[in-house]
Amino acid sequence: MDGIRNMKARLFTPGPTPVPEDTLLELARPVTYHRAAEAKAILAEVSEDLKYVFQTAQPVFTLTSSGTGGMEAAVSNALAAGEKAILCTAGRWGERWRGVLKAFGANIVTVEVPYGKAVTPDMLEAALAAHPDTKVVFTTLSETSTGVGHDLEAFGKIVAKTPALLAVDGISGLGAMECKMDAWGLDLVVTGSQKALMMPPGLAFISASAKAWAKIDATPVRSFYFDLRRYRKSLAESDTPFTPGNTLIKAQRVSLKRIRAEGIENLWARHSRIAAACRAGVEALGLKVFAERPNSALTVIAVPASVDGTATLKALEKKYGYKLADGQDTLKGHIWRLSHMGYTDSFDVLGALSALELTLLDSGFKLEVGAGVAAFQKTYAAGK
Amino acid sequence: MDGIRNMKARLFTPGPTPVPEDTLLELARPVTYHRAAEAKAILAEVSEDLKYVFQTAQPVFTLTSSGTGGMEAAVSNALAAGEKAILCTAGRWGERWRGVLKAFGANIVTVEVPYGKAVTPDMLEAALAAHPDTKVVFTTLSETSTGVGHDLEAFGKIVAKTPALLAVDGISGLGAMECKMDAWGLDLVVTGSQKALMMPPGLAFISASAKAWAKIDATPVRSFYFDLRRYRKSLAESDTPFTPGNTLIKAQRVSLKRIRAEGIENLWARHSRIAAACRAGVEALGLKVFAERPNSALTVIAVPASVDGTATLKALEKKYGYKLADGQDTLKGHIWRLSHMGYTDSFDVLGALSALELTLLDSGFKLEVGAGVAAFQKTYAAGK
Repeated sequence: MDGIRNMKARLFTPGPTPVPEDTLLELARPVTYHRAAEAKAILAEVSEDLKYVFQTAQPVFTLTSSGTGGMEAAVSNALAAGEKAILCTAGRWGERWRGVLKAFGANIVTVEVPYGKAVTPDMLEAALAAHPDTKVVFTTLSETSTGVGHDLEAFGKIVAKTPALLAVDGISGLGAMECKMDAWGLDLVVTGSQKALMMPPGLAFISASAKAWAKIDATPVRSFYFDLRRYRKSLAESDTPFTPGNTLIKAQRVSLKRIRAEGIENLWARHSRIAAACRAGVEALGLKVFAERPNSALTVIAVPASVDGTATLKALEKKYGYKLADGQDTLKGHIWRLSHMGYTDSFDVLGALSALELTLLDSGFKLEVGAGVAAFQKTYAAGK
Repeated sequence: MDGIRNMKARLFTPGPTPVPEDTLLELARPVTYHRAAEAKAILAEVSEDLKYVFQTAQPVFTLTSSGTGGMEAAVSNALAAGEKAILCTAGRWGERWRGVLKAFGANIVTVEVPYGKAVTPDMLEAALAAHPDTKVVFTTLSETSTGVGHDLEAFGKIVAKTPALLAVDGISGLGAMECKMDAWGLDLVVTGSQKALMMPPGLAFISASAKAWAKIDATPVRSFYFDLRRYRKSLAESDTPFTPGNTLIKAQRVSLKRIRAEGIENLWARHSRIAAACRAGVEALGLKVFAERPNSALTVIAVPASVDGTATLKALEKKYGYKLADGQDTLKGHIWRLSHMGYTDSFDVLGALSALELTLLDSGFKLEVGAGVAAFQKTYAAGK
């Protein structure tokens, strides 16, 4: 190790994210029976707290799966084979929707923008006008591959005027950035445990609006494991249809209490403030933010042409213990992805910025030492 | 509490089962990135150890899901809609196969026996002869709802002579009772983390024979999340197609090391010895074993007509801390299910028998005090 002895390992990947110590300790407790009265009380409590996080009056279902399993639940329940779907995609996670949609034989209309850009409400409105037979619009809250956030409030208003549903992959944004399922008219919302919800991976969560339920109840479901009607029936009795990851549910309860204690609006504001400070710090280092419409779940930094992006991340981890994420596929080496999600505060992100600055310095990149952290601090202090 | 202060809670349900302390502590460690080199090395190691547990040379895939998700993977990959499947069912978990098969539009031929009985090899042979167009036979290793075990070695020989595949739900037996995927000719084997594999719920595991892969590769898959071809491609690079329950995988590694250290044949023999001792103890109390062909993953006890089965289990838990499982559906109140799976040894099961005896005594049931534990001890000591 070059500089630091007893180097701490710090996780800044946009999933998994750091998990609070009390949540981790809950996972070390002895395993209990998942059909006991205590287990049902915990699931009921978790489901209520998830409604708060989703900002919905609808039940939120807990699936034992990756986030992609939640996406499969949305598609396999709400869309029949051959039905038309508009896919608003701005990156790799939009493409994940495409993968699921193709597997289920959807008739896909693509509304696409280059990596780094966001699909605009106008583009969606035009696509819906051209395809009035659309059954479901699929999109992404936080496109983690590029750092872009979509204007789901505007999307919701547009889709609400049509018979179509709006299905949202909220996996890496929900709980970190403003997202109001009911108020914005989002019909199917999916998220996962390992991003903003301060948990390891292993659980996905999904909720459906009344409009979505009408479509689901009229559509032949194409899964047994992800059949949402089974989850609805079970959750009415505070239960799950299949043996759930019950120790994960108990741990999720602990992290959800943290979110409730902070208050979701405060949490959104805090992440937004951290994200603004982070962007200011990045720019003060002479770097550029990659996303045109950045969201507050993570900051994605464009790697300068003179810098080897992948080697820098490796050095950053090896010398300073900070684990950021590289770009995926064609973006590998071209961007750095720094998460603010989950159990991460302003001091954590400030440290990451400091480590990135030191790593760039080591590599001979020209920058004003201290400019990044000072700009972060100034912007953070000016926020509220 | 009547008798015992500082009463210990002891889990004897046939899933979830007790988890070793070092495995639980692994779950409390900080979360790490699931695409790091270390994560790949761990997945590779877990996958090798799973091959040992499955007794197969084929890759074993880790799914982030309940066991039922693994069953859905088998059906959605290996069977096209309308294709014929023989379902050999002896209880509720056979019925779970039926649920998945119906959801995927299988043409189901049922070979069924009353609860407590086992489907015989003859019955399967006759069904295959009558239905030579069968594509897959579905059955259960350990029918946890009744305690019955199927003679899969014989089933394997019969199915191997036909073009059909043999798909096995090994969720609650694999790792506790003899089951040799390759040697017995089992084509699709599914299990879950929370039974014999000494882990909390949240992971399912599945492996396919070369014969099964030929069918899978010729069949249009009907899932994205459970598309085994994606798992095959990823595992070739020691990776998973979707963000896995990576902390669960790290913990599973710890429990698998325990299984390897004991040796799978020793583990089978130990469970078999415990099961024989448990049955002897049960009979010495004047009770009857419910299953005609009992398996060694659990002992299912028929509740005597004079006894309130459900009330007895409640008293057993309340007074002595032992959590056994009631019968399900029509068997509720009529059987008691006592698991020997996972991190459970002979002294644990002896204690459960002692607590059951005390509870029966309290309720006025006539029995010779000490007869149960003495018979257990005698049979156990005579074993090897």
